[in-house]
Amino acid sequence: MALAEARAAAERGEVPVGAVLVDGARRAVLAAAGNEVEARTDPTAHAEMLVIRAGAEALATPRLTECDLYVTLEPCPMCAAALSFVRIRRLYYGASDPKGGGVEHGPRIYDHETCHHAPEVYGGIDEERAGALLKEFFKERR
Amino acid sequence: MALAEARAAAERGEVPVGAVLVDGARRAVLAAAGNEVEARTDPTAHAEMLVIRAGAEALATPRLTECDLYVTLEPCPMCAAALSFVRIRRLYYGASDPKGGGVEHGPRIYDHETCHHAPEVYGGIDEERAGALLKEFFKERR
Repeated sequence: MALAEARAAAERGEVPVGAVLVDGARRAVLAAAGNEVEARTDPTAHAEMLVIRAGAEALATPRLTECDLYVTLEPCPMCAAALSFVRIRRLYYGASDPKGGGVEHGPRIYDHETCHHAPEVYGGIDEERAGALLKEFFKERR
Repeated sequence: MALAEARAAAERGEVPVGAVLVDGARRAVLAAAGNEVEARTDPTAHAEMLVIRAGAEALATPRLTECDLYVTLEPCPMCAAALSFVRIRRLYYGASDPKGGGVEHGPRIYDHETCHHAPEVYGGIDEERAGALLKEFFKERR
């Protein structure tokens, strides 16, 4: 589902990243989105931010303690920090992002004493397909 | 103006942080906001995020290269990263935030090789008043 969101984002001219927020307690999809940075002229409209905001609104709480996030790319520092704020339970991501990632690269958001909540992190899921989408997108544009 | 936004936020029951985005080229205020996390049930609705989003919409671009941000508290990692994305020119902040800040504490967002843009940073501006607002707010609630 996250890959489908990423593909749909690419078709809209957005960086192809897709995210799905799942309510682990009810085993239900709460929100799914692709990047909407261009469409909204909103530099913060990453797929992860959109599903976090939709999920908090749907559950009427800023604490998504029983929710898991699936995303096609390692989250950037902004999204990684937001996922910590909402106390996401598990983070599953596809492709690693050595240049822009904030989980296992760069500022490694969850690796600091001041981080109040670190989710369980599972990276490299269906990494090849997730990464191919991005490579193709940027190849066409450069 | 940022302090006034923070005070107004406190009156609404929000963590008292206020931010103002200034277009340095036109010498005009683009956006001002206080936290709206509670009002919007949106954990990402920090004052900084709100003015960034409003500014990008107002200027119809995700690049705020000639804009400066004034905020009463050291930005958290989420906001610090967002400020880097929009290539904010200068960041002026009031109180330091050793527990939650992401600029001079914790993940120090701008101090990594993978950070594409680091603003000029000026901290400790009117720090006492900015910090007193927060202390008072949390004292009343604990």
